[in-house]
Amino acid sequence: MNDTTSIPPRSGAAFTLAKGELLTVIDPEGMQVSDMLAYGKDDVREVISNGRTFDYEETISLTKGNVLWSNRSRKMLAIIEDTVGRHDFLLTPCSTDTFRHFYPDKPVHRGCFGNLAEALAPYGIEADAIPCAFNIFMNVPVNGKTGQLEVLPPSSKPGDYITMRAEMDLVVGLTACSAYASNGGSFRPIDYRITRDGAAT
Amino acid sequence: MNDTTSIPPRSGAAFTLAKGELLTVIDPEGMQVSDMLAYGKDDVREVISNGRTFDYEETISLTKGNVLWSNRSRKMLAIIEDTVGRHDFLLTPCSTDTFRHFYPDKPVHRGCFGNLAEALAPYGIEADAIPCAFNIFMNVPVNGKTGQLEVLPPSSKPGDYITMRAEMDLVVGLTACSAYASNGGSFRPIDYRITRDGAAT
Repeated sequence: MNDTTSIPPRSGAAFTLAKGELLTVIDPEGMQVSDMLAYGKDDVREVISNGRTFDYEETISLTKGNVLWSNRSRKMLAIIEDTVGRHDFLLTPCSTDTFRHFYPDKPVHRGCFGNLAEALAPYGIEADAIPCAFNIFMNVPVNGKTGQLEVLPPSSKPGDYITMRAEMDLVVGLTACSAYASNGGSFRPIDYRITRDGAAT
Repeated sequence: MNDTTSIPPRSGAAFTLAKGELLTVIDPEGMQVSDMLAYGKDDVREVISNGRTFDYEETISLTKGNVLWSNRSRKMLAIIEDTVGRHDFLLTPCSTDTFRHFYPDKPVHRGCFGNLAEALAPYGIEADAIPCAFNIFMNVPVNGKTGQLEVLPPSSKPGDYITMRAEMDLVVGLTACSAYASNGGSFRPIDYRITRDGAAT
């Protein structure tokens, strides 16, 4: 029980999560980002929505006690533990286009977008149906006066984690991020664990 | 020429906008919000994306000089004039669910979401394909330290406007907002004008 799965650096995974199950996402080595998407298992046109979440939670900073909502105004995931408290929900997954834009001198990678698209395809989810991800451990401060944002290295340390409870049956996509800026240029793995009771960690 | 169309209070419209055409959205009476969506005319699975826009523009405050991007990392609309300088791109359109959530004692309205869904249906766009809108004139300050947001009345005055140039052929959805908080409880019309040259106003 309590088996932990590792997502290798610069790759992704997808899996189902039943209502009531707990998903714990762990940063095993520290300073790594994991882009997470969630879709309704019974109808993948229902999808995680940063806008609905910002509206109902009245904040762009989501942590323990907050809920991640769908485009149909239903609760998808409740955050029940969080040892970092800093995640991003503003940005879309890195992709070949963002690599060309932000790192013109570096090799192009398909990024979290390509990794999520491949992992989610068996569930009938198209690349165009990939919205803003909940970017776990991603550190994107916003200047409240100017609106300007910047992408800083995560503050997560080895073993830091976040635990979320599924509020409905879900298909979840999860990555170990591929972009340079979001993890300080160090590509590391991400671990995750699915549990069925309250003892997630 | 230069015909102005009025969107009555608490309603919506949809229309095509050819590459190079200018769309001017006007607040004729002041303090009103207009939710705007944009889709690729040739393939409506391409859609306006707040996350791609925040990433490429490196800000959540969009005004003259900024571009609104699609989920496929293409430029959709360039903001070329803006007499207000305060718009929101964080929130999804108001809907029956948001009315029940935020105004439990008031009559439920289908909101901008329902108005956009009806107006966009003839273009083959489903309600589930409605993402965060670019909420013109909507005043949503974010506290940079806590992440908390609030919805304040718009600062737009009668006759204020924003002009955007289409960077590709588009289907556009546009509303006169139906929610109480976003326009200070006064439901007013929104005007728009489509022009083909640089003389948009």
